Amino acid sequence: MKIYRVNMTEGEVTTEDVKDAYAALGGRGLTSQIVADEVSPTCNPIGPKNKLVIAPGLLSGTMAPSSGRLSVGAKSPLTGTIKESNAGGTAAQKLAKLGIKAIIIEGKPADDKLYTMTVNKDGIQLEDVSDDLIGKGNYEVMEKIQAELGEKVCVMSIGQAGEYRLESASIAVSDPEGRPTRHCGRGGTGAVMGAKGVKAIVIDDSDAPGVPIVDQDRFKEASRALAKSLLDHPVCGEGLPEYGTAILINILNESGGLPTENFKTGRFEGADEISGETIADVISDRGGQKTHSCHPGCVMRCSQIYNDKDGEYLTGGFEYETVWGFGANTKVDDIDAIAMMDRICDDVGIDTIEMGVAVGVAMDAGVIEFGDAEGAIDLLEQVGEGTPLGRIIGSGAGFTAKAFGLDRVPVVKNQGIPAYDPRAVKGVGVTYATSTMGADHTAGYAVTSNILSIGGEVDPLSKEGQVELSQGLQIATAAVDSTGLCIFAAFAILDDENALPAVIDMLNAQYGLELEADDVTALGKSIIKTEREFNIEAGFTKADDRLPDFFVDEECPPHNVKFDITDEELDGLYNF
Amino acid sequence: MKIYRVNMTEGEVTTEDVKDAYAALGGRGLTSQIVADEVSPTCNPIGPKNKLVIAPGLLSGTMAPSSGRLSVGAKSPLTGTIKESNAGGTAAQKLAKLGIKAIIIEGKPADDKLYTMTVNKDGIQLEDVSDDLIGKGNYEVMEKIQAELGEKVCVMSIGQAGEYRLESASIAVSDPEGRPTRHCGRGGTGAVMGAKGVKAIVIDDSDAPGVPIVDQDRFKEASRALAKSLLDHPVCGEGLPEYGTAILINILNESGGLPTENFKTGRFEGADEISGETIADVISDRGGQKTHSCHPGCVMRCSQIYNDKDGEYLTGGFEYETVWGFGANTKVDDIDAIAMMDRICDDVGIDTIEMGVAVGVAMDAGVIEFGDAEGAIDLLEQVGEGTPLGRIIGSGAGFTAKAFGLDRVPVVKNQGIPAYDPRAVKGVGVTYATSTMGADHTAGYAVTSNILSIGGEVDPLSKEGQVELSQGLQIATAAVDSTGLCIFAAFAILDDENALPAVIDMLNAQYGLELEADDVTALGKSIIKTEREFNIEAGFTKADDRLPDFFVDEECPPHNVKFDITDEELDGLYNF
Repeated sequence: MKIYRVNMTEGEVTTEDVKDAYAALGGRGLTSQIVADEVSPTCNPIGPKNKLVIAPGLLSGTMAPSSGRLSVGAKSPLTGTIKESNAGGTAAQKLAKLGIKAIIIEGKPADDKLYTMTVNKDGIQLEDVSDDLIGKGNYEVMEKIQAELGEKVCVMSIGQAGEYRLESASIAVSDPEGRPTRHCGRGGTGAVMGAKGVKAIVIDDSDAPGVPIVDQDRFKEASRALAKSLLDHPVCGEGLPEYGTAILINILNESGGLPTENFKTGRFEGADEISGETIADVISDRGGQKTHSCHPGCVMRCSQIYNDKDGEYLTGGFEYETVWGFGANTKVDDIDAIAMMDRICDDVGIDTIEMGVAVGVAMDAGVIEFGDAEGAIDLLEQVGEGTPLGRIIGSGAGFTAKAFGLDRVPVVKNQGIPAYDPRAVKGVGVTYATSTMGADHTAGYAVTSNILSIGGEVDPLSKEGQVELSQGLQIATAAVDSTGLCIFAAFAILDDENALPAVIDMLNAQYGLELEADDVTALGKSIIKTEREFNIEAGFTKADDRLPDFFVDEECPPHNVKFDITDEELDGLYNF
Repeated sequence: MKIYRVNMTEGEVTTEDVKDAYAALGGRGLTSQIVADEVSPTCNPIGPKNKLVIAPGLLSGTMAPSSGRLSVGAKSPLTGTIKESNAGGTAAQKLAKLGIKAIIIEGKPADDKLYTMTVNKDGIQLEDVSDDLIGKGNYEVMEKIQAELGEKVCVMSIGQAGEYRLESASIAVSDPEGRPTRHCGRGGTGAVMGAKGVKAIVIDDSDAPGVPIVDQDRFKEASRALAKSLLDHPVCGEGLPEYGTAILINILNESGGLPTENFKTGRFEGADEISGETIADVISDRGGQKTHSCHPGCVMRCSQIYNDKDGEYLTGGFEYETVWGFGANTKVDDIDAIAMMDRICDDVGIDTIEMGVAVGVAMDAGVIEFGDAEGAIDLLEQVGEGTPLGRIIGSGAGFTAKAFGLDRVPVVKNQGIPAYDPRAVKGVGVTYATSTMGADHTAGYAVTSNILSIGGEVDPLSKEGQVELSQGLQIATAAVDSTGLCIFAAFAILDDENALPAVIDMLNAQYGLELEADDVTALGKSIIKTEREFNIEAGFTKADDRLPDFFVDEECPPHNVKFDITDEELDGLYNF
């Protein structure tokens, strides 16, 4: 495998052999290590010294189930921390099949020109972007590229938000149908791509060599074992395929942890209208797809295709956190309006979670009223138009709060807090506060033991055991994020003793290694330490590992709980 | 003397005796100590846990020349650091005469209501602000209050920017004519006042007891000695009264340190059009005042009153940094347009330096063209109107850069870098990088030895001696900022061996102390250490004590110099 280095200052592409230190790394482990090795922690994230690192996971491109996640790393424009944001779609598998370990995009075009980068069996080529893609949204960009190059190519692209270098800009990754429904959403990696002058990356794996496997038989057997483990798990094999992730709306509402009205309460009276069950019914009625793979070979198939009232495609990959952000958090109970907001975000190329939090903040500051779905849609459209108000919203929740003078702002390290109230789901609150990524539920998804009874049970309302829970999950997640496996595979790993050995077996079979379970834990710890060291050099301290005061001071109904895990307890997370 | 505590949550005013630890503190020394003692370093600056502390200097209210500076302290919304911002005007002297050591404004009205605070011999009274002041600029606010209460009252007020809680909002302090030309400008203290729900503070010193002096004769003698020292000094006694601070335009342009076109070069071809000499001529021609005291008893009289083409009052207190910001930095060479921008900032209540840098950034990002005076005026008017674009600009230079995707941003700790290019005036570059306040020329005004041959000479283009120069000045300044003396008095102190003893003599005579020169240095060190400790608790590290990369990487014409003082050398500033 090779590492490709694309210098946008010079317009040069070079290839490098994979250093020994990088050989056993993939996905997040590799992007974070390269960023730590090569990026000045104090640089301006949209300046020439930042780098955008793209890496498939260790298992990507193989027949391992649900292993097609792509990692993108950089210094985050939103948080100022190191950042790894991962997505499904078809990029990771194609890159792996092309023998690409990572692509490092560095420098900055002097003239702020935009380029298209084509990745195929002949390497990487840069060319000026065609004029008709400039200023266009991801749907149009992908359609036009596929019209020219065929439907089988994968496109990674930025919409208008990335061109504007807004701090919530995402990188879209085309799904198996070629649509921009999968995103490296969090932390503004789309702004970094925009700052590098890259509008689109076209990945064509025609005649690709494919991924070598040292021991094919052993790999197949382990792969089948993991697939069985996933399909047998009640969440991975039943809940997710049947209802998608939005099945969590009713569950979180019931638990009192569904943040409503910019985190004023934990229960939304309109929850039924936006629940996974309702969405599944609407999808069925309109001839959409209740279950859909975000990348080939996923057995959990939690993605969906959502049609409008006329039965025409509207959006896909419609996640719980998106439904929450534009629903409960803004008191909008119109699922079609929420679906439209999801589509706009996919098209403009902005993180749906950050936008949900930002729109909630804008409502709380009086820019528009809570529950105003049309107003919310208008705000998101303005992001694409680049109006001053759109630029404020598109720069995220913390930014919006400052522009409108609001002091009650649900962010950690300037990243919007997602769909689980940290007072009522305290384990994930610990993750928000301490993660190297800013407020990020996926960095240590304690919703498992707090709410879903996966991997044991930890009372979500009590402070007991939450730091340990989050710590274990953060370490495990860093390792899983390196394999290319979807984080939902962790549900099976937590509950089925056969799952982790199967994953390790696949890695050993593919690479000819003899890893054991302890090596996986060691990898997770090492990744987090590398990321944290970068953040410390960037100027982060324990003062940044805190939730906003209002979670500590204000009770969250209906359980009337506060976040009561002390600063000292939070600081204990890094005792490993 | 008393300390008044105004709790805006409860609407309660209480008084406290002055603790022993505060007895020998005034101005910045006192505001910083109270903020450090009482404010959570990690709180949201516009939330209920921040406090706004107002304190006259130790010598304020006496006959000491040029001793009427007022300090305002808080956690800064702009920088997140501790902040002291000081201003002239008539507030400090009146507060001191009323026996008020400090006013601490804390909490936050639950209903976001606005109040007027009246300070007089009977104490402090809060009342609802009259409807006709809400949403109004400082000129109208002060006129209406003085129309009701007489011209002798001092008014401290916020304009629209403070009501919006924008991060560049200032607090206006009325000058001897009752106009809002003197501002606690830097760091957004106006946003804190707005967040506390205080629109205006009216200070009436009728029948005030006055400031007690232990040894009147000794005080008078020392006071006369300082006045002589100031009047004999070529800058304090001649340059400033004759031309105002804008005399520096030609001097900095000549030295190649006048930042032009958002810090692209150090020389502005339109400098003559905006120089102090030109301004003085225009003022004379139109019947304005070339020399004017910003507070009673100032012998340097560097303020001015600038009339428009019809001979009508337009603005006052028109400083070098303002003329630079709206002139060279934005390539506007129309002095009337610049004067209008100064007036708008005074009226809306926003820091002219931050606005000059923000407008330069907006121009660099293509929002308007460099040199577009009308466009710049429009941007500033929009701040007052609260449009989304106005809110972006009014939130400062760093914010504006993020909204418009610009990576070349002249800020330190998110505060705009003022009127001296740190590459061509390296001593002040050290101050920008390391000051506890963010980029602040007044925190250690190394322009003295670098450019003005005051206090010796240190080559501005060489790195030699700059850290020591800045260190000494930062320590001395912290002490001077505690006395209520104008920082320009430091020019005399640096050059005339009689000046510092005169200041110490006044303090000893007033308070019955026996301070020596070493005590002054110790006070300065102690203040900076207190401030720095607050910042460390707030999460600041040495990574924040840096200039933006472009000052290190790009040469500044005409001398083609870079900022070459290393990180390690910068970190040495705090070795004391």
